[in-house]
Amino acid sequence: MRILLSPDATAREAGEVLRLAREAADRPDEVSVETRDGRMLISMTANGESVDPAMFERLAGVETVEDARPIYRLAGIDQLEAEHAVRGRTLVEVPYAGVTIGSGQFVVMAGPCAVENDQDILATARRVRRAGARILRGGAFKPRTSPYSFQGTGIEGLEMLARAREEVGIAVVTEAMEPAAVEMVGEIADIIQIGSRNMHNYPLLRAAGRQNKPVLLKRGMSATLEEWLGAAEYILNEGNPNVVLCERGIRTFSRHSRHTLDIGVIPVLRERTTLPVIIDPSHATGAAGRVPSMAMAALAAGADGLLIEVHPEPDRALSDGFQALSFEIFDALMSDLGRIAAAVGREI
Amino acid sequence: MRILLSPDATAREAGEVLRLAREAADRPDEVSVETRDGRMLISMTANGESVDPAMFERLAGVETVEDARPIYRLAGIDQLEAEHAVRGRTLVEVPYAGVTIGSGQFVVMAGPCAVENDQDILATARRVRRAGARILRGGAFKPRTSPYSFQGTGIEGLEMLARAREEVGIAVVTEAMEPAAVEMVGEIADIIQIGSRNMHNYPLLRAAGRQNKPVLLKRGMSATLEEWLGAAEYILNEGNPNVVLCERGIRTFSRHSRHTLDIGVIPVLRERTTLPVIIDPSHATGAAGRVPSMAMAALAAGADGLLIEVHPEPDRALSDGFQALSFEIFDALMSDLGRIAAAVGREI
Amino acid sequence: MRILLSPDATAREAGEVLRLAREAADRPDEVSVETRDGRMLISMTANGESVDPAMFERLAGVETVEDARPIYRLAGIDQLEAEHAVRGRTLVEVPYAGVTIGSGQFVVMAGPCAVENDQDILATARRVRRAGARILRGGAFKPRTSPYSFQGTGIEGLEMLARAREEVGIAVVTEAMEPAAVEMVGEIADIIQIGSRNMHNYPLLRAAGRQNKPVLLKRGMSATLEEWLGAAEYILNEGNPNVVLCERGIRTFSRHSRHTLDIGVIPVLRERTTLPVIIDPSHATGAAGRVPSMAMAALAAGADGLLIEVHPEPDRALSDGFQALSFEIFDALMSDLGRIAAAVGREI
Amino acid sequence: MRILLSPDATAREAGEVLRLAREAADRPDEVSVETRDGRMLISMTANGESVDPAMFERLAGVETVEDARPIYRLAGIDQLEAEHAVRGRTLVEVPYAGVTIGSGQFVVMAGPCAVENDQDILATARRVRRAGARILRGGAFKPRTSPYSFQGTGIEGLEMLARAREEVGIAVVTEAMEPAAVEMVGEIADIIQIGSRNMHNYPLLRAAGRQNKPVLLKRGMSATLEEWLGAAEYILNEGNPNVVLCERGIRTFSRHSRHTLDIGVIPVLRERTTLPVIIDPSHATGAAGRVPSMAMAALAAGADGLLIEVHPEPDRALSDGFQALSFEIFDALMSDLGRIAAAVGREI
Repeated sequence: MRILLSPDATAREAGEVLRLAREAADRPDEVSVETRDGRMLISMTANGESVDPAMFERLAGVETVEDARPIYRLAGIDQLEAEHAVRGRTLVEVPYAGVTIGSGQFVVMAGPCAVENDQDILATARRVRRAGARILRGGAFKPRTSPYSFQGTGIEGLEMLARAREEVGIAVVTEAMEPAAVEMVGEIADIIQIGSRNMHNYPLLRAAGRQNKPVLLKRGMSATLEEWLGAAEYILNEGNPNVVLCERGIRTFSRHSRHTLDIGVIPVLRERTTLPVIIDPSHATGAAGRVPSMAMAALAAGADGLLIEVHPEPDRALSDGFQALSFEIFDALMSDLGRIAAAVGREI
Repeated sequence: MRILLSPDATAREAGEVLRLAREAADRPDEVSVETRDGRMLISMTANGESVDPAMFERLAGVETVEDARPIYRLAGIDQLEAEHAVRGRTLVEVPYAGVTIGSGQFVVMAGPCAVENDQDILATARRVRRAGARILRGGAFKPRTSPYSFQGTGIEGLEMLARAREEVGIAVVTEAMEPAAVEMVGEIADIIQIGSRNMHNYPLLRAAGRQNKPVLLKRGMSATLEEWLGAAEYILNEGNPNVVLCERGIRTFSRHSRHTLDIGVIPVLRERTTLPVIIDPSHATGAAGRVPSMAMAALAAGADGLLIEVHPEPDRALSDGFQALSFEIFDALMSDLGRIAAAVGREI
Repeated sequence: MRILLSPDATAREAGEVLRLAREAADRPDEVSVETRDGRMLISMTANGESVDPAMFERLAGVETVEDARPIYRLAGIDQLEAEHAVRGRTLVEVPYAGVTIGSGQFVVMAGPCAVENDQDILATARRVRRAGARILRGGAFKPRTSPYSFQGTGIEGLEMLARAREEVGIAVVTEAMEPAAVEMVGEIADIIQIGSRNMHNYPLLRAAGRQNKPVLLKRGMSATLEEWLGAAEYILNEGNPNVVLCERGIRTFSRHSRHTLDIGVIPVLRERTTLPVIIDPSHATGAAGRVPSMAMAALAAGADGLLIEVHPEPDRALSDGFQALSFEIFDALMSDLGRIAAAVGREI
Repeated sequence: MRILLSPDATAREAGEVLRLAREAADRPDEVSVETRDGRMLISMTANGESVDPAMFERLAGVETVEDARPIYRLAGIDQLEAEHAVRGRTLVEVPYAGVTIGSGQFVVMAGPCAVENDQDILATARRVRRAGARILRGGAFKPRTSPYSFQGTGIEGLEMLARAREEVGIAVVTEAMEPAAVEMVGEIADIIQIGSRNMHNYPLLRAAGRQNKPVLLKRGMSATLEEWLGAAEYILNEGNPNVVLCERGIRTFSRHSRHTLDIGVIPVLRERTTLPVIIDPSHATGAAGRVPSMAMAALAAGADGLLIEVHPEPDRALSDGFQALSFEIFDALMSDLGRIAAAVGREI
């Protein structure tokens, strides 16, 4: 929220507005004061749940209260008329896939956690493509808790993805972990992924905003909506309007699954932003047997798509076998999703 | 997990088993040791994720490792052959509603947060019945954070429910808050609800287990799966096999909704228990506009039903209007649910 | 917060106030509206952080905004002048112990998790008394996750406590788990404990408020400050002013300790309530080796006392040995606490 | 944990070990298998609480179980004999400050949230130095939720810090936000800070590990102990042994303070790592009035120091005034800390 004081507001009035702004702000320490054309401008972060702009409009000395959600000026729902939004939705085109995320079509991105070798990624690309997935996922650079864990196949992995992309004719999404790598990843990928652990990595977000490929922005493990949309705003603000949000489970006290899939965020995002949102049920559940249930829930809840792990032989996979679907299970899931999509008037 | 030592196990062997049990237990402080027929019996709580019984079977001095989940002997999935379970599911009959929860049918329970007056509850009962709900919800006794808040209409509320039940021919679910009230509530209700705040109230759970009406057991705000199924076990262990679990959102860092609906618990419960599970999207989201999305997700994810708030005029409601659906929205939701149910081979 | 409208407020004005109250309330669904002397009274829960009463005072149609924190009218800090508070603190006398909790003295309550037998409880009582503890803790009735776990020694345990109390001359604190048991426990105990799992058990809280013994109210595992003080208010509102709050760790994502000790709640409680607060480092850490560090932190942070587990032979204890201190470690801790107390101008 | 199989282990034995490792691992999906000298090596992350290496040593086909905590080979407590550890503690020297963090001395780092101008930072440096702080804190680059918020004074801020450092003779700690900036920050700072939002930024951690200045590593908002020590390991593994951990509050359901200070992590870190740990009570509480209480608790609990916000005129500060101490309050706190330090046999 930005509160512009009138030129003749008294100091006492200004002080009172500032005091109230600090009391109402989500982060009192981030209320800022600047002057603009000789008038005071007080800016604060406050989501619509807790603060009503009208309260401030009534205070003495206040001229206007504008831009209710400055934290996400571009991502916010008040951007309905922005050029990148159509009927209140940002449409993210992925030309090579022939899909537009956010258009109503349910877009499935599938593939292994990590790109391991040419043979597997090629087989996976073919099979998920045939089953109806439009985009191949696969990590070449992998952020890991321990420096001694497998860190991905790196540049070779990117090249494997490029070959699978060309041979099968399927678009590709893969992760970039540092500003210096964004350009290189963008040469091969149709969508650049920013992982959960990097959602707060602002230099990386800016770099992703300064190139043209769509960006898949995963929610941080304990990110609030404000922080997530704030991260999107870093990308948008650099000039790249093509951001797809991805919910992948949040960190809670609950231990029965790897993370808690916050599926309730879907309708909330619809109220707050024009950006599309997809769901990653694989990382959230951490168990292949639970993935189909959550994938169907995501579609029924109104998500724009899925990011889902599939592996030729999950049992053989030395990493992430637990949460990857086999080809057969993935086929069955796509068929189930097709029936639900038809029931809710959408297509895959 | 219960580890029976052999009669000739040495103390050192026993000590080692005890030490390992404490290291592996979910709650090291709850590992217990008793003797049975002259042999030592070590009992611990440990879910299947973290501890393999086979590890203990290999230790010197161990005779058998039995009963992997003693915490929910009756609620556990290994009760497939129990008389109350049919093909791995506990079937909870609600005769007056003509439904069997857990049978595959999707059972919708709908009505106001609190029973306010005869006219409203009657109108609501008629309308939700017509739309396809089989059970009327409505609180007569309301647990509130402040002693100065409206505490419900109490016994009068129960009587209003009884009149609506008879006049409309719809079954009723309502809450009991203390052991002494269980019998009285059971005289009117077809299902007795135990609220989230009382999930750990063991005397109340025991009282609910000593009568015959089905029990709707809401998950505590921060209850783990073990605690929730442990609470169910208190009811089952008194002789009442008819327990329906109800997920209503958990408490997390997230502030964009009232609670975080842990929809991922649905497939996990399928793995662990025979008991049916329904979803309460109203309390979880705390906003009527988000309820339909979550209700559809619950059905697609495989829940056995819904507990949902409906009010004749949500705007007029002085309590809980925020999360109650109007009749019109409820009608539309039921129709959407019908289409998804058909797509997944179920009926409402 | 309670907003009284003027008798001539228009409906539109009232509607506006109600709308804003719902936007500002912590729980929009708990904003209530009643009439009082022909005027409308709107009540809401909102802590001082997010809502300024002054905002409402400025609205058209508002007469007065009173009682900023109705949820804890008696527990709240604005009760400085209440008869039970002295210089802003509620003083809870425990005559048999010769101490007044909240007076500045640091009161240590120590003993086993569960009362097991006469010999152990007697030995423990003597030893902790000698080391400086003024109150003996010990559970006779134990709330357990599983109905098959040890549920305490019950009435026999109470009798053991009574004998230890008399023989050693030490006051006793023990838990009551249901309304029907409060009177019986109160006959023996100097302080009645309400456990974490029962913090939301309002009939139990009311029962504790209708008798005269001080009540030790443990914070629920995921209770907010509002809920905790609301629970205290249920007791105070029945006429018993002697409530001692007990922080024992909250449930978070963190797994390195049993619970996360929210020691930061100590200064916040000082701002919000006159009630004394003690810390239970044993349940929070779940490991004896970490208890002294947290006990010292509690004293330095300004707590009014400790609730701490001590057992004659922790290794032998079949329950809770992990978190109980041995006599020797407890002696050493009391000596360390004595030095810190002296440094901060307090005594034990 | 790393499990080396014997050369003649059968596939069935290997399969069994792998299966058990996946069941016991914290992250089943991160169990890796490689071969080493013709033998199979299975690596997993599992903290000491849940898995006993001895369990694996007993399995058929297992040769050795080594390195129980590979995730923090260098940070782990089993590094007692490592050259950088003295009597089980890593000693982090800060020559310009004349202190060694981890040596028993309680090291206070104080200063403003953000470096604003020469005058203020100079005044603050002088005053905190006089009061006993050995290190000046102050952010030049500030990670912010919104791209429209004040992002710090950047390079100019670094230069202001350099001038204050030289003029007052006080060491300096300040944050680096991206790999490319580490060298530049290291030219001025005595300690390089990695902020909470970058704890998972592995390229940044590696860059900090490839230079020689000590690194202050703040815990991520929802980081587990394993993730935090894993992050430290990224730095250590590049050859920089001088890492200081900083607990600054974690994200929980609790709303009464900005974050929940996990003070209980102090004794747990003592058990698990040789690295020193300091506490940031300012970010955790988000309120100046609560900082002294937590600062004293940190000292009593055994922390190695504090990172604390101080500002010449908190009321005038347009950012972070809420949690900064005034000079007067800081002086009083230092004096209180001095008394507690003396009581526990330490010095400031």
